[in-house]
Amino acid sequence: MRHFGLPILTLAAAAIAASAFADGHATPDLESAVKARQANMSMIGYNTGILGDMAKGELAYDAAMATAAAENLSAAAAMNRMVLWMERSEQGVVAGTRAKAEIWTDADGFDQSAVALETAAAAMISAAGTDLDSLRAAMGPIGASCGDCHKAYRGPRN
Amino acid sequence: MRHFGLPILTLAAAAIAASAFADGHATPDLESAVKARQANMSMIGYNTGILGDMAKGELAYDAAMATAAAENLSAAAAMNRMVLWMERSEQGVVAGTRAKAEIWTDADGFDQSAVALETAAAAMISAAGTDLDSLRAAMGPIGASCGDCHKAYRGPRN
Repeated sequence: MRHFGLPILTLAAAAIAASAFADGHATPDLESAVKARQANMSMIGYNTGILGDMAKGELAYDAAMATAAAENLSAAAAMNRMVLWMERSEQGVVAGTRAKAEIWTDADGFDQSAVALETAAAAMISAAGTDLDSLRAAMGPIGASCGDCHKAYRGPRN
Repeated sequence: MRHFGLPILTLAAAAIAASAFADGHATPDLESAVKARQANMSMIGYNTGILGDMAKGELAYDAAMATAAAENLSAAAAMNRMVLWMERSEQGVVAGTRAKAEIWTDADGFDQSAVALETAAAAMISAAGTDLDSLRAAMGPIGASCGDCHKAYRGPRN
């Protein structure tokens, strides 16, 4: 086994990820996965917040900035869930998560919910760059997908 | 100004983003931007960690999982920087960040560094799905880009 580039790799892989993997594991550490998907949710929240604040008039509408936020929201929503939502990485099993067991027992429903956000976020990219009215119209499906998914698949506060 | 969907939007926009924007701001709040790019860096670290652990033999090689990690790394690396790396969101100005002023005074250099990771991460997608040797070969440019960028543009620990 070669250990090329290891010092540089150690720089690359933040402490969150690098130290949490045990030798020979077949899947990534569940606690690291929970932190990573929460980090991704922060990106979703941040970029949705920019768009939402423009929609509400609390942040000046800027087509380039709105497009950037929409691109980031879309990319975060479309992250491959295979390494983020592993079975058993649920509330009551892994500390800090509010992920309900229904994410895995109703995997098709969860997938549909996730795809709803992906679709709404992808549509926001061109809407955000068009004008404020288009941005506002595209917010509805985004907000609805967030609310629907959280209602069905997010447990109570820990 | 319409406030359609506001309760759902509030669900959508995590506390990080939603509460930090003041009325009439022309750019997103810098502290929120710092937290968002750190969250994105966590996603970069987590997914790079999966690939790095496979390269080192500490996590069993799995083509589908490696591809998923590479796709996520690539998406995180390619996030639009306009809403993440705003001027003055630097160490000594905004709490918690280690971003050096050189990110903005040497914007072309920073951009080249960022593009180096984007390019290396994009190449990892097919390499990761091919076999372990290909994955290992594709790790070099990723690790190098991380190290180069951190050396040039990341300040000392706060």
